[in-house]
Amino acid sequence: MAEDLKQAALDYHANPKPGKIAIQVTKPTANQRDLALAYSPGVAEPVRAIMANPADAYRYTAKGNLVGVISDGTAVLGLGNAGPLASKPVMEGKGVLFKRFADIDVFDIEVDAKEPEAFIDTVARIAPTFGGINLEDIAAPHCFEIERKLSERLDIPVFHDDQHGTAIIIAVGLLNALELQGKALDEARIVTVGAGAAGIAGMRLLVDLGVPRENILLLDSKGVIHSGRQDLNAYKAEFAAATDRRTLEDAIAGADVFIGLSKPDLLSPEMLRSMADRPVVFALANPDPEIRPELAHSVRGDLIMATGRSDYPNQVNNVLGFPYIFRGALDVRATTINEAMKIACVEALRGIAQEPVPAEVLAAYGLESLEFGPEYMIPKPLDPRLLERVPPAVARAAIDSGVATLPYPAHYPAQS
Amino acid sequence: MAEDLKQAALDYHANPKPGKIAIQVTKPTANQRDLALAYSPGVAEPVRAIMANPADAYRYTAKGNLVGVISDGTAVLGLGNAGPLASKPVMEGKGVLFKRFADIDVFDIEVDAKEPEAFIDTVARIAPTFGGINLEDIAAPHCFEIERKLSERLDIPVFHDDQHGTAIIIAVGLLNALELQGKALDEARIVTVGAGAAGIAGMRLLVDLGVPRENILLLDSKGVIHSGRQDLNAYKAEFAAATDRRTLEDAIAGADVFIGLSKPDLLSPEMLRSMADRPVVFALANPDPEIRPELAHSVRGDLIMATGRSDYPNQVNNVLGFPYIFRGALDVRATTINEAMKIACVEALRGIAQEPVPAEVLAAYGLESLEFGPEYMIPKPLDPRLLERVPPAVARAAIDSGVATLPYPAHYPAQS
Repeated sequence: MAEDLKQAALDYHANPKPGKIAIQVTKPTANQRDLALAYSPGVAEPVRAIMANPADAYRYTAKGNLVGVISDGTAVLGLGNAGPLASKPVMEGKGVLFKRFADIDVFDIEVDAKEPEAFIDTVARIAPTFGGINLEDIAAPHCFEIERKLSERLDIPVFHDDQHGTAIIIAVGLLNALELQGKALDEARIVTVGAGAAGIAGMRLLVDLGVPRENILLLDSKGVIHSGRQDLNAYKAEFAAATDRRTLEDAIAGADVFIGLSKPDLLSPEMLRSMADRPVVFALANPDPEIRPELAHSVRGDLIMATGRSDYPNQVNNVLGFPYIFRGALDVRATTINEAMKIACVEALRGIAQEPVPAEVLAAYGLESLEFGPEYMIPKPLDPRLLERVPPAVARAAIDSGVATLPYPAHYPAQS
Repeated sequence: MAEDLKQAALDYHANPKPGKIAIQVTKPTANQRDLALAYSPGVAEPVRAIMANPADAYRYTAKGNLVGVISDGTAVLGLGNAGPLASKPVMEGKGVLFKRFADIDVFDIEVDAKEPEAFIDTVARIAPTFGGINLEDIAAPHCFEIERKLSERLDIPVFHDDQHGTAIIIAVGLLNALELQGKALDEARIVTVGAGAAGIAGMRLLVDLGVPRENILLLDSKGVIHSGRQDLNAYKAEFAAATDRRTLEDAIAGADVFIGLSKPDLLSPEMLRSMADRPVVFALANPDPEIRPELAHSVRGDLIMATGRSDYPNQVNNVLGFPYIFRGALDVRATTINEAMKIACVEALRGIAQEPVPAEVLAAYGLESLEFGPEYMIPKPLDPRLLERVPPAVARAAIDSGVATLPYPAHYPAQS
């Protein structure tokens, strides 16, 4: 990050007041009568109503539009185990994005818990507060157990964005990239480096979308995850391949797709040269990708590429997903966020990228034109069609898959 | 509560949107650069700063102005054990009052924990989120242990408002009432009915203010708490009296002060007649007091009275305390709220009640005049002097008692 951006970021967070959020009171509090309605004695009425019918909490409190963004700070951005306190600017920032893009209110909660069970118990106990829970920046492999157990215990959506948010945007980009390269999803050979939250969830989602498991080679810091390894946790073991390939160099030869969730400069020009015709490279390490786009394009003219950066084309950016998938889930009061809803999100985002770009989006980015193609296969965050289109698709999928408890909202667009 | 107020309260909570609070983003988010400062990659800078210096959390996040209003829902208003979910309108309402009166942001957190240890662990683990914790509506006697253990574990203020908030306002009213009745605090005989959170904390604060412990008779549902009883928890045992009085009728004869935190119509006209000359009666059961003011005044012309209701003079209302005591504590980043700070709050509130009332306060209540006396010995909630005067007094006391970590704020009034 440039020095001027670093100082600007500190100033942004510090001035004129510390932090990025505040509470807004949404009802009148001017006089004694207002206060008698907001608090004692009037507030006893909604309390009685909720005691009689728990669903009335959605009618009389902020719960239904309130998401807890909750972290233990063990895997913060590229900074690792920063701890709960130091993760707070990130969690507040996540709340800012929820509000900015989908008008969802967020309490960011930083949890000081060393063991997964302590974290799980804590989140489960405070869950009555929320209409949904977005887990954030929790290290693998604990993140998998934490999300699974919380989903089982709670009847509100629990979503670990570092897994599924990233997986969804990778899928959007990859499906479009393969289409542009003229390759079939069920024939592409995929090599993914990084078997943490995003790597595991990303591969699971690709399998659900139709990628044969045997077409995937997943690598961790020790190389290819294969069936001969004795050091695999249950999540990595899901992707243990029957192969004699051991290194990235072995794995990448002839591959159609490289997905990097690892570290800078991992993918050498030689490796890139060894890939199949018309390769797809998602170099998502941040801020420095597995191969610099300038270098990659100089090596392979037939390449399509995405990164995690906003200053290159095709940014894999979770903000395209989580605000809208929660908006849809909350609007039909879904009890979970299931595969059908994630896939609906993928398809809605793919469709937006393939359609003509509205003038206001071009203006927001200072662009003359933008057309579906190798330089634009993932929607842009400031595109207003995201809010118009993705939540309805997610809500529809929740209803059709039987996890919604409310009908399709009247204020949504008519269903096709 | 009147039927029209009940319906108005439900409507107030439901429309136009459910609940009373929302999140407000306080920094710009218009364009890509704003978002790069608020979240990735810019947010990494405040994270690094806090990793290097934890106090920077107060510089770069909302923590320093953020209070957790946290309840298990076991003692909600007069409704008892409503449970965490049904307590949410009350906790949101508390947040509304914090914001309205002292510009303090609140996350209301409803905790589903059956045992005190589970509640304590939960609150301690989420504490990195907050600059202070206001415990609310937790049943006695667990509330005492919960507050004590959390205060020991955490380095931010922990304050159980049902104890100390109520205790502070009772003390304000009582000190002024005794002065008006020409009675000395250290000679008054006090009878208090109700040995829960407010009763115990109220008597502890009166002792700290100079009331001899032997001048207090505390009663619970079984009558006078005396040294011969075998059924007392440790908190009640603090006030076990060496007396042969057993009933309220026994206790009240000749008493100067009655403080009711119990139930409607407990204090009979005969009991009131048996009190000493110029008695003080605080009938604080809500909504129906231990004796109706009309009846009480008809029985004793020399009475001074307070209730918990806004439609009678001298309302004992916690909103006079908690917003300002937290404002002062947060502004000097106190590590706790100690007795000195509570007493400073009492003295500041007493002073406000004794001074001439500003015209804007009269206007807010539609009054022609209001003067210190039997009908006005506790300040009014809409008095702007509360915010001007109470936090500085609390902050000064925090500094003088060595629990502040910042100096007296520059934007506060000059110190006398």
